[in-house]
Amino acid sequence: MRADESVKGVLEDVREQVTPDKAERLALSEAIDELRQRIDLELDTREVSGETVHVGSTARDTWLSGDRDIDIFIRFPQTIDRETLEQQGLEIGRAVLPEGHAEFAEHPYIKGEYNGFAVDLVPCYDIAAGEPPKSAVDRTPHHTEYLNSKITPAQASDIRVAKQFLKGIGIYGSDLRTAGFSGYLTELLVLEYGQFYEFISEAARWSLPISFDPASHQTKSHDDPLVMVDPTDSSRNVAAVCTDENVARLQHYAREFLESPAVEFFTPTQLEPLTKAELRDVLERRKTDLVGVVFETPAIVDDQLYPQLEKSESGIKTELEARDFNCIRSTHAATDRTLLLFELQHATLPAIQRHTGPPVDVSDHAETFYRRYAEADVYGPFLEGSRYVVERDREFRTARELLESTALFDVGLGSHIESALQDEYTVVEHEQLVSLIDEFGTELAVYFNPAP
Amino acid sequence: MRADESVKGVLEDVREQVTPDKAERLALSEAIDELRQRIDLELDTREVSGETVHVGSTARDTWLSGDRDIDIFIRFPQTIDRETLEQQGLEIGRAVLPEGHAEFAEHPYIKGEYNGFAVDLVPCYDIAAGEPPKSAVDRTPHHTEYLNSKITPAQASDIRVAKQFLKGIGIYGSDLRTAGFSGYLTELLVLEYGQFYEFISEAARWSLPISFDPASHQTKSHDDPLVMVDPTDSSRNVAAVCTDENVARLQHYAREFLESPAVEFFTPTQLEPLTKAELRDVLERRKTDLVGVVFETPAIVDDQLYPQLEKSESGIKTELEARDFNCIRSTHAATDRTLLLFELQHATLPAIQRHTGPPVDVSDHAETFYRRYAEADVYGPFLEGSRYVVERDREFRTARELLESTALFDVGLGSHIESALQDEYTVVEHEQLVSLIDEFGTELAVYFNPAP
Repeated sequence: MRADESVKGVLEDVREQVTPDKAERLALSEAIDELRQRIDLELDTREVSGETVHVGSTARDTWLSGDRDIDIFIRFPQTIDRETLEQQGLEIGRAVLPEGHAEFAEHPYIKGEYNGFAVDLVPCYDIAAGEPPKSAVDRTPHHTEYLNSKITPAQASDIRVAKQFLKGIGIYGSDLRTAGFSGYLTELLVLEYGQFYEFISEAARWSLPISFDPASHQTKSHDDPLVMVDPTDSSRNVAAVCTDENVARLQHYAREFLESPAVEFFTPTQLEPLTKAELRDVLERRKTDLVGVVFETPAIVDDQLYPQLEKSESGIKTELEARDFNCIRSTHAATDRTLLLFELQHATLPAIQRHTGPPVDVSDHAETFYRRYAEADVYGPFLEGSRYVVERDREFRTARELLESTALFDVGLGSHIESALQDEYTVVEHEQLVSLIDEFGTELAVYFNPAP
Repeated sequence: MRADESVKGVLEDVREQVTPDKAERLALSEAIDELRQRIDLELDTREVSGETVHVGSTARDTWLSGDRDIDIFIRFPQTIDRETLEQQGLEIGRAVLPEGHAEFAEHPYIKGEYNGFAVDLVPCYDIAAGEPPKSAVDRTPHHTEYLNSKITPAQASDIRVAKQFLKGIGIYGSDLRTAGFSGYLTELLVLEYGQFYEFISEAARWSLPISFDPASHQTKSHDDPLVMVDPTDSSRNVAAVCTDENVARLQHYAREFLESPAVEFFTPTQLEPLTKAELRDVLERRKTDLVGVVFETPAIVDDQLYPQLEKSESGIKTELEARDFNCIRSTHAATDRTLLLFELQHATLPAIQRHTGPPVDVSDHAETFYRRYAEADVYGPFLEGSRYVVERDREFRTARELLESTALFDVGLGSHIESALQDEYTVVEHEQLVSLIDEFGTELAVYFNPAP
């Protein structure tokens, strides 16, 4: 398949924009050399055996111009124990980047700045390719090794274009908020198809699930729409974190780009925040009932926060639906405070609610049901077909009553969200929601202008 | 199983009430003798071969005191053709009952009065037991023959009690409005269990479906909750017309009677019509939205009318639900005018409505869907998981708009209901419904005081 001229023109423009120039490359390689020397010196001084490995996109010539991330791993022999590895890693890192600070996500390392570059100095174990990792990051140097052995300079350039495309359409990143395509996954996909144009042409036509196994060594099946077996780990799906929605998004925008090529696809769209007047207008146009829960955003990293927000949103939505509040759509937005927003067909329901009992011929259950309600203040029991039915008073007639009750804490909330709600929260509707426009205007603009 | 004393007392009271006294029996047998003589005379005069057969409950000593139905069949040889049979049947009937009139339900016959009794004179063919009938009613004399050969006087008395019980709980009759237990079915059930008390004790514990085949000759399977294979027709379920709800109703009231025996079970309950104030109160208590369709009741027999009312009610309910108007319950009531009533969670819906498209990876459908809506005045298309979704304007925001539109005629209405609606109908809500209380007060009382 060959790209036509208009596509070629667009891709050349993008390629120019994302390719680092000589000065950027020089500054980068100087910084790396200096960092490696400093680390080597520290290792010598401490009489610790270990070696530095430059990893990540800057090690593979696949970084986007302007991205200034340097990842250097300090690889220790497997003979040293875990505690020593972490301690030495942090000490060396601190010595090399005295202004840096320690991060303890799943594995402790030092994050700092050097000559304007964002630097991660990460200790790891030296494992052989394919060997089971001893720490979470031991595979990373092998990723770089694998890719460096495969990527041609032309492909490196197409990888940059692919990354920029995924950034433009909002799905670049395997952090748990984006839940999209990691750099490693993007590089493997472009390698798979040889070039960017081929990649999106094929992605536009993928029938899911689709699976790739570049090293032909898959040992485990994966229940994901997109599977890329890690060439350095036969049991891992590199695309495991990528949601089905983001795979669909790639397919959608691939088709749109092929239909009407434009550089705009490579730039993330940024909506203007909604104004109060616009919000009132859209509520008036949709004639739905919006109900929100507002609380102080917990002080946790995004990779913890966003999964918990999604869990809370979906848990509350399930509870609303179980209580007959039909939910049209919902969203979450986190600034200093967090808004969980539910758009309902109606925030108020009838006073009564149907409750269907067992079939009359299932004697035990049927008699128990009938006796329970025969003298109760309900309509019925009566028969509908072969079953008893009663109409009893509804526990929560309004969504507000439900959300202000302890029933809110019976749904699957994330633990930090649960604590935050236990501290304090407010239920907002209508004008109360409008008054939050300064905090959540941008997210509300996205919500009311939904796009793929 | 033995009935305890309190049950025995109740049953004796009922038995006394439903057993005809000597005077009633004498009047009946005189009337029958005279009618047979008159028919025989007509047959002689016309030189037509044929014989009179007295059938039905008065022929089996199982009628309820006060019921004054005499069914006499004129049985003709199979050698005469259908036209002659019908003509002779009607002529003889008219001669015997000059004040009577012809009925043409599925088979023409003469209906009239004689000495205060309601008399049906019905022509039929003389077929052997088990032989396929030539007309719809040829089996009837065999029913009487079969039952007369089985029923003991004690059982005849218990059959009367059983019939009165089914009357009391509103499920006696195989007409299409009642859709309950025919006299023949009731007699077969009591024969099956030997006595009334045994019958309801067992019915209370039936696990459905339950099947009886008194002549052990079943040749066809039936998808009904209650199957009684006709001892005079191996392929017929005598209980085919009986709904699952009425079988459940029998089970329910059998249990209730056994739990607290009382003569009240043998008397149909009659609710007082609802007053306007009561209707307003119940609407205020339930906080639902009631919407009704009112029209002139078509001039057809109940066996045509009620199935069509049920079909129309269920068709409209399905359409309301398909348009997102959640229906809590519905009913129909026919006096001079007919009311089809739907109780909704809300009679008004948001302006927008979700519309879910195909998964994005089903390229053809997905692209067609996206193109159709991309430039339309809708929210979206956007992605939810792997699918496109749009929120578009709702066609009918209110149940009234829907019911006043031609969409009403797209649902499965019965043909006579459809004609009646095409002539004229009104959609009523709230106070308009209250103003119909004089016409439908009794049915509304039943609706808002639902019982098994």
